[in-house]
Amino acid sequence: MQDTPYLAVDVDILDRNLAAMAAAARAAGTRLRPHVKTHKCVEIARRQVALSGAGISVATVAEAEVFAAAGFDDLFLAYPIIATGRRADRLRALAARVALRCGVDSAAAAVLLARAVPGLPVLVEIDSGHHRTGIAPAQAGEVAAAADAVGLEVVGVFTFPGHGYGPDQREQAALDEATALADAATAVARAGISMTVRSGGSTPTAGLFDSDVLTELRPGVYVFQDAQQAELGSARMADIALTAVATVVSRAPGRAVLDAGSKGLGADRPAWTTGFGRLPDRPDARVVALSEHHATVEFPEGEVPAVGQTVRVAPNHVCTAVNLADELVVVADGVEVDRWAVAARGANT
Amino acid sequence: MQDTPYLAVDVDILDRNLAAMAAAARAAGTRLRPHVKTHKCVEIARRQVALSGAGISVATVAEAEVFAAAGFDDLFLAYPIIATGRRADRLRALAARVALRCGVDSAAAAVLLARAVPGLPVLVEIDSGHHRTGIAPAQAGEVAAAADAVGLEVVGVFTFPGHGYGPDQREQAALDEATALADAATAVARAGISMTVRSGGSTPTAGLFDSDVLTELRPGVYVFQDAQQAELGSARMADIALTAVATVVSRAPGRAVLDAGSKGLGADRPAWTTGFGRLPDRPDARVVALSEHHATVEFPEGEVPAVGQTVRVAPNHVCTAVNLADELVVVADGVEVDRWAVAARGANT
Repeated sequence: MQDTPYLAVDVDILDRNLAAMAAAARAAGTRLRPHVKTHKCVEIARRQVALSGAGISVATVAEAEVFAAAGFDDLFLAYPIIATGRRADRLRALAARVALRCGVDSAAAAVLLARAVPGLPVLVEIDSGHHRTGIAPAQAGEVAAAADAVGLEVVGVFTFPGHGYGPDQREQAALDEATALADAATAVARAGISMTVRSGGSTPTAGLFDSDVLTELRPGVYVFQDAQQAELGSARMADIALTAVATVVSRAPGRAVLDAGSKGLGADRPAWTTGFGRLPDRPDARVVALSEHHATVEFPEGEVPAVGQTVRVAPNHVCTAVNLADELVVVADGVEVDRWAVAARGANT
Repeated sequence: MQDTPYLAVDVDILDRNLAAMAAAARAAGTRLRPHVKTHKCVEIARRQVALSGAGISVATVAEAEVFAAAGFDDLFLAYPIIATGRRADRLRALAARVALRCGVDSAAAAVLLARAVPGLPVLVEIDSGHHRTGIAPAQAGEVAAAADAVGLEVVGVFTFPGHGYGPDQREQAALDEATALADAATAVARAGISMTVRSGGSTPTAGLFDSDVLTELRPGVYVFQDAQQAELGSARMADIALTAVATVVSRAPGRAVLDAGSKGLGADRPAWTTGFGRLPDRPDARVVALSEHHATVEFPEGEVPAVGQTVRVAPNHVCTAVNLADELVVVADGVEVDRWAVAARGANT
């Protein structure tokens, strides 16, 4: 047995989640281009590609390099890449090897991208309400024209409706996503540029997307799900495929302390969550505090586990938890059947 | 040049921080046993040992293994270790090779430790107010007696005054630390067990500790400092030795988005902080949101940096940021002079 804490993946739940999303996209006639930042595992991306075709989404040039080296040949770098320094050379090398497309949200970034990779296919990033990166839909024509003028190939527009990560915000975020992508497509067409891709999607909005507008979906978290998704209502606790297996190291009335902390689970903790993760097998337990190697968990009276017992914790945000581990322990019917390397762990650049 | 984001360590600030803490401990006649979980770097631990003698503190058996393999031979595993499974064998192998001492806070854990490593030196962990692991000072005698009865060697008591991580709580936490260690030492003596170590310390309380009570200090963060310590007032912004170097990837009125996110900085965000980190060179900037590869930063009017510009971000909690990186870029006078491996990155078990 692996010493705790470690991340375990129930491969049957994983496969069920993969199949359900692939089937939903297929039924809607929308291309699924899953975001592999969540799992960073070659083995899982292969399963996704087997279900939905070649395309995957990545967040960084370094992630693209890992998946290109593993044979994936259709990559969307869904990020407003700044092609300076070595990154310009790395992008050029990637584009020579695989079908690569990149995000862009400013004329300044377009100039750098065009200098690095003349003719690179790009998608203009749109802000649909998350207010992170991306430009307003009405300005999409200007950025598309600037990209076109420097010799990039504008193939579409994309957005991340991240404001759907909140209680009762999923429906509105899905509406905003469709409206923003439709408006942006109109603005790009008015600028005289023809393009075909309208890409959106996140796990919270993936069941609600407008298939008349979206031609492509990029959810990531759905493969594993997590405590956040269960508390948002976009997944059930039973859909959670990845948990941290932890040992009770200390105990006091009403609480136990586990050896899984922020260096294993990640410290993500939106204000609307009930704590720093959930225990799928103990629905009434609450993870009230997290240190680097401690999770303090409150239990109902009489249910505090004993020192030495192991329990399972679903991280709040599975993407950051996976990025802390070198490998995932793959389990079927409670028995270890494989180990998968987190091949793109730490691939931030 | 390294592509962003990456972690840079200013070696002159680092050396100043190391020397200041070593001098303060020496002046107080208290042994400094620095906690290496913060940096996980062999090179930094060597500098610490050169200043203060052989002893270091570690958080996990896996960290102990990394530092033992690098030649460190006096290790305090400041954690209530549960010696089950392979961990029992790993502890035994370590204890055969280096001077190892462990934390314990229950009779149940003592039984497991004694079975794994008969005669192992242990320190009883005390809860001085942080309410994480550790027992009440008055119960220290019982746990010490239980450990003694199963053949462990009780050499001391220890606490972590983590409740000092809050505005205006440092002084009270330092008082609580001294009171709890003194009371626990009395309780252990009453149980008829003689021991000598009263170990405490955290970076926020390190300037305030009671040298009449504490025989040993275990601060970690002081080597690098971080945004949290600066906002707590236990360090100055100018004492921050480690920053993430990031590129502006997107820009809107009043804000810029950087390519350093929660997968590079960590997501730690206590309620009392001003945001998800600080920009030491831009004191009025606020990191208002963090995604995996995005930091959204608000700037005063007219001060928003341009797309492509690089800026430095001090993480809120440097320990979790370092644990995300494979190496640190070592800088002197703004020029890269070395790279240090984060040798114990991910060493959670």
